[in-house]
Amino acid sequence: MKITVGGDSHGRSMIGVLEGMPAGMRVDVEKIDLMLRRRRGGFGRGERMKLEDDHAEIVAGLWKGVTTGAPIVIAVNNKGRANPVSGVRSVPRPGHVDYAAWRRYKLSDLNAYAERSSARWTVVFTALGALAKQFLESFEIILYSYVCSIGRVKAENVPDERSELIKRRDASRVYCPNSDVSDRMCMEIEKAMSAGDSLGGSFRVVAENVPAGLGSYSDIFEKLDSKIGAYFMSIPAVKGVFIGSEKTDLFGSSYHDPFDVEKGIVVRKSNNAGGIEGGITNGESIIVTAYVKPVPTLKAGLQSVDLRSMKKSTAPYVRSDVCVVPAASVVGEATLALILLEVFLKRYGDDNMKDIRRRYRNEVIPRWDDGFWKDDDR
Amino acid sequence: MKITVGGDSHGRSMIGVLEGMPAGMRVDVEKIDLMLRRRRGGFGRGERMKLEDDHAEIVAGLWKGVTTGAPIVIAVNNKGRANPVSGVRSVPRPGHVDYAAWRRYKLSDLNAYAERSSARWTVVFTALGALAKQFLESFEIILYSYVCSIGRVKAENVPDERSELIKRRDASRVYCPNSDVSDRMCMEIEKAMSAGDSLGGSFRVVAENVPAGLGSYSDIFEKLDSKIGAYFMSIPAVKGVFIGSEKTDLFGSSYHDPFDVEKGIVVRKSNNAGGIEGGITNGESIIVTAYVKPVPTLKAGLQSVDLRSMKKSTAPYVRSDVCVVPAASVVGEATLALILLEVFLKRYGDDNMKDIRRRYRNEVIPRWDDGFWKDDDR
Amino acid sequence: MKITVGGDSHGRSMIGVLEGMPAGMRVDVEKIDLMLRRRRGGFGRGERMKLEDDHAEIVAGLWKGVTTGAPIVIAVNNKGRANPVSGVRSVPRPGHVDYAAWRRYKLSDLNAYAERSSARWTVVFTALGALAKQFLESFEIILYSYVCSIGRVKAENVPDERSELIKRRDASRVYCPNSDVSDRMCMEIEKAMSAGDSLGGSFRVVAENVPAGLGSYSDIFEKLDSKIGAYFMSIPAVKGVFIGSEKTDLFGSSYHDPFDVEKGIVVRKSNNAGGIEGGITNGESIIVTAYVKPVPTLKAGLQSVDLRSMKKSTAPYVRSDVCVVPAASVVGEATLALILLEVFLKRYGDDNMKDIRRRYRNEVIPRWDDGFWKDDDR
Amino acid sequence: MKITVGGDSHGRSMIGVLEGMPAGMRVDVEKIDLMLRRRRGGFGRGERMKLEDDHAEIVAGLWKGVTTGAPIVIAVNNKGRANPVSGVRSVPRPGHVDYAAWRRYKLSDLNAYAERSSARWTVVFTALGALAKQFLESFEIILYSYVCSIGRVKAENVPDERSELIKRRDASRVYCPNSDVSDRMCMEIEKAMSAGDSLGGSFRVVAENVPAGLGSYSDIFEKLDSKIGAYFMSIPAVKGVFIGSEKTDLFGSSYHDPFDVEKGIVVRKSNNAGGIEGGITNGESIIVTAYVKPVPTLKAGLQSVDLRSMKKSTAPYVRSDVCVVPAASVVGEATLALILLEVFLKRYGDDNMKDIRRRYRNEVIPRWDDGFWKDDDR
Repeated sequence: MKITVGGDSHGRSMIGVLEGMPAGMRVDVEKIDLMLRRRRGGFGRGERMKLEDDHAEIVAGLWKGVTTGAPIVIAVNNKGRANPVSGVRSVPRPGHVDYAAWRRYKLSDLNAYAERSSARWTVVFTALGALAKQFLESFEIILYSYVCSIGRVKAENVPDERSELIKRRDASRVYCPNSDVSDRMCMEIEKAMSAGDSLGGSFRVVAENVPAGLGSYSDIFEKLDSKIGAYFMSIPAVKGVFIGSEKTDLFGSSYHDPFDVEKGIVVRKSNNAGGIEGGITNGESIIVTAYVKPVPTLKAGLQSVDLRSMKKSTAPYVRSDVCVVPAASVVGEATLALILLEVFLKRYGDDNMKDIRRRYRNEVIPRWDDGFWKDDDR
Repeated sequence: MKITVGGDSHGRSMIGVLEGMPAGMRVDVEKIDLMLRRRRGGFGRGERMKLEDDHAEIVAGLWKGVTTGAPIVIAVNNKGRANPVSGVRSVPRPGHVDYAAWRRYKLSDLNAYAERSSARWTVVFTALGALAKQFLESFEIILYSYVCSIGRVKAENVPDERSELIKRRDASRVYCPNSDVSDRMCMEIEKAMSAGDSLGGSFRVVAENVPAGLGSYSDIFEKLDSKIGAYFMSIPAVKGVFIGSEKTDLFGSSYHDPFDVEKGIVVRKSNNAGGIEGGITNGESIIVTAYVKPVPTLKAGLQSVDLRSMKKSTAPYVRSDVCVVPAASVVGEATLALILLEVFLKRYGDDNMKDIRRRYRNEVIPRWDDGFWKDDDR
Repeated sequence: MKITVGGDSHGRSMIGVLEGMPAGMRVDVEKIDLMLRRRRGGFGRGERMKLEDDHAEIVAGLWKGVTTGAPIVIAVNNKGRANPVSGVRSVPRPGHVDYAAWRRYKLSDLNAYAERSSARWTVVFTALGALAKQFLESFEIILYSYVCSIGRVKAENVPDERSELIKRRDASRVYCPNSDVSDRMCMEIEKAMSAGDSLGGSFRVVAENVPAGLGSYSDIFEKLDSKIGAYFMSIPAVKGVFIGSEKTDLFGSSYHDPFDVEKGIVVRKSNNAGGIEGGITNGESIIVTAYVKPVPTLKAGLQSVDLRSMKKSTAPYVRSDVCVVPAASVVGEATLALILLEVFLKRYGDDNMKDIRRRYRNEVIPRWDDGFWKDDDR
Repeated sequence: MKITVGGDSHGRSMIGVLEGMPAGMRVDVEKIDLMLRRRRGGFGRGERMKLEDDHAEIVAGLWKGVTTGAPIVIAVNNKGRANPVSGVRSVPRPGHVDYAAWRRYKLSDLNAYAERSSARWTVVFTALGALAKQFLESFEIILYSYVCSIGRVKAENVPDERSELIKRRDASRVYCPNSDVSDRMCMEIEKAMSAGDSLGGSFRVVAENVPAGLGSYSDIFEKLDSKIGAYFMSIPAVKGVFIGSEKTDLFGSSYHDPFDVEKGIVVRKSNNAGGIEGGITNGESIIVTAYVKPVPTLKAGLQSVDLRSMKKSTAPYVRSDVCVVPAASVVGEATLALILLEVFLKRYGDDNMKDIRRRYRNEVIPRWDDGFWKDDDR
């Protein structure tokens, strides 16, 4: 499976390509658009998001509405290009790619770099993730996400039960499944807004009903932890990522999840591991938490330097959001879906839905075989 | 650049291969062994580490002591194999790969999986990292690491100045540059030891004098953040990783690092970004913090299930460490070195040391060019 | 560098993405379109090519006309979609992907597979190659291609001198730099046309003024030979590829290219090696010859089987070309350009044109150093 | 699946690593050694091959004789190191990597490059391929190879039937299944030997009973043709590769393989396609032919230049073979086995032998479904 994302923030359209998708999945474009709508929303988003309608056009890879094994190409148009950036910019914004990119690419207009480095590309990444989510849902693997913190306001008493959690999350303007906290988060964002400031925070993505045995320990970069690190840290503004409990300061006897047996089935009483042990899924829910830095573009501009005159200057304000944590949580959900799609196909094959479905259904929990290894089904 | 690591924990030797190393670097094997010695040490390590002498044998890739552009193959023998694992094991250890691997690979002896999933492979990964470190040091890029926390004991007052920090770290049995805290950490480990328990913690890796402009924003997985995620999360027991400051709950105005100009040179007054903005180095120190879960093998065995009888059982104790955070900090140092080697070679070419050195030296900070882009050196 | 190609033959547009392009190259879109025009032409092409105008729209990756280091996204619209395929097809065409794809993807409409497997995608691959060619030309590396054979008619007396060869090639309707042979090739194609048959043949691509030392022997798949194999064999209908002379039946004393010295410079008197020894360029011209099978869709349909009824049937005629060797030669030219771009950037760095150009210029032929390796420039 | 090969020709040992092998395959090391013996043999090999005994030591990846999903590490020791190369060499051998590598790596001793570029590494590549062959044979996929030509002597009347072909091949000193031709080939080699000259030739690899539907058309580099190009062209001395018939000069009506139906099953009457259409296997035998240049080291040294003095000189003779085509045919067999293993695992999953075997057995030829795509097995 290969994922490719291109497109400039103010170009005609963003393009996402997913190679290696099996044939035979009927794609529900409406569901993709729904996820794009969630990504566009969340209190704290800026003006541009009111402009965009973010419809996913599937340019290639479908025949009569189903996947064919060909690359899936998705385009999302940029309405925002109606207000293009103009002029030359020589004052870098702290926290943005501006200065670092100038040192590498050496083009004397910092606007050039923002085209790529804007988080706008996540719109097609999310669309590809929505596709992956559809695949996973057809195997009863369910993903969801929610906001854990915005600035210093942290969620508490998050419901354990998924449908309750999602209901509450969807009732929150900041995707936080805790109505009191949600209100305080909005107030925090308003405070930032009125101060010309910005906020970060954290979000969590959960995947339920994931089969045990996904991921590999062969190539160290095929361990599921490694893929989660690679993918989540590529989301714009994410500076930290955690798998499972963040309480790594516990003693081992309190941290590790004991095994038990119930009605002849192995069960766990806790899930601090976050569903992954040794790089491979263990059958429990996968839990990933990501930390997002504050938006780097502030109305009350930060101190900067004009690279032309080499004199102090104030970083310019380019149309921006105040807080993107709710949006990032949706991108994170797409991200985990793409990762799980990849390792699922590695284990069950990548040809077509019928065969993959039959294989998955026939997969049983192994029974212990005292002969160690008799390839007796042969 | 391609990294490959193989070897079973109780096999003859561990093997690491590094492809894509430029020709012409004189390798100091003694320095590699020194790093392996640091990895072997740290209070909290188990019996095995007293057994091993961990000498890096460079099996291939050198001619008269210098690299030739051929793959570097490093072998480290396993003395630990003198005490091999025997018998069949059917009781999985919580926190280890045992159960997850059984669900995937379906071999009825859990000992089979521990061979790969043991952290023993990090010995050759560290050796490759030591090689990368030598490369970087010849360009005055300096890496070091230290332990930030063990269990609930956290380092405070870490010196800002590198040589002081390293001096103090080297005086600590747990690689913590804070002598009071270091003592408390050791006490915490002793407590765990006597309780048959284990501990995790966190460590930090810093790279100083890194040139601006390493990494890429083209392929989203080539962003330096993504590589850091992929590599650090593949280190055994690492469950979380952070780039730069963990204070993502600050307002943007406090988090982002203002630019200033001093003697005609762009400078930063803070480094919350940890040296990376938008996936590319910005010239400040790179700072990565990783969180390590407690060792999953406890003398006071955790509750488990015998997969043969499907009855409750106590997880077995297999020779193990009590706390590996100091060792992991050295692995982390190697890890960051390999990442930086990779992006350095991508930017400056991968052929031979003479040319790479000349190119690096000729690289200048770009000056602003009002013609936007005149390829006038052509 | 990463190349991604998507798009269905009758979809809205074909999409090509090139990641890892350095910043600062001014792109001449007209030159790209010129190459697409050459690809569209050549006697033997079918009806569709009269329909298409194949304009390369650069959707992303440019700012004020120059590359920014962001992914280059190129779209070419499909006018051919005006005549879409309709109905369900159950009779596979021998030589096409139809049957093989059905066995893998199991969708009961063979038209689904032709969307991807049509050679239509080479239009954007060629556009990316045209971009690579512009890069290489700015370093005086020149690529060209020509047709060597069509069916049993083979080119003879091909001029050694490039500009003469190109002049003659451009005068030929089948891109063969030999006017007599060219006429006979056209007659052969006419014969095939009137018989409802098709033809294959072979073409050659040459790259002149390639610097020595590109490619690597570290990873065996980074050897230039391996890349040439991987890329050329992915061109639709190519069944064979050769580097350098095909006279591998000579004795070693006649095959290998002696060294000589002229005016203090190492020269070769022949180039049977085709510019590559041991996976690395040796400074001579790179020569690749590829063999193309006949077009698999014949007006006089081949014997086939209806997969629905499992009865014999005649393979259907779907709008097609009679001979694509001239077009394939242009695709081959693009292919070699992309390969050379990749290895060039690996050696000289991938950041920006100014630095790459300076590095390239400073590269000198190494002088022999009796100290073996003194990294004295350090 | 990832393949890594390291080791210097005169170093302690060659190392091959195969990541991504499923668990549960019992490995027959004797069979691997048998294949290494075939590789070592063949009339025309030099002195070194009498020295080596080429035993494959499986350093890692097995537990109680079966694969565990961990990386397979294979080492083969170099007895040839007893006669190490000494002194500094400044005269490059035409046809070898010497000069090209010097231009890239700039180390002033050409012996440095021969360590990697020697074909010695194919010994561990062949060992990995022998492992892949065992995997494939357990699914009744059978691979074999034979020599087609040496110099100008070409095989004729090759038996169609596999066991007869192999019997005859094994009776030939040059692995040619045609006793008359085999004798003439040996005479040709003797002629070269006595003239201090060398020879190349060609070989063919065949895979029988390959399931239809392996390979992918999604990523163009995942097409089976592309993989065959990439892998075969990485074999030392291979300059050309062909899939299926080399008669691409036929008309389409004669080249393409008609479908027929026999006893309700789709059959083909010919196999010019060599088992691959559109990048995917079609169920027929896979046929790959490769062209090998003459050995570049000649006793009667070729004209060269001393790079130290820049004066004409004669290329030195370093212990070498006279003809390696028989050995290369065995390497080619290993190569195709590794390719097929890779695409097999992509389609059927990469976890463990029991599940893969069950999946493979349950795979049926799709039946035509007039509903186009009803995912009714769901």
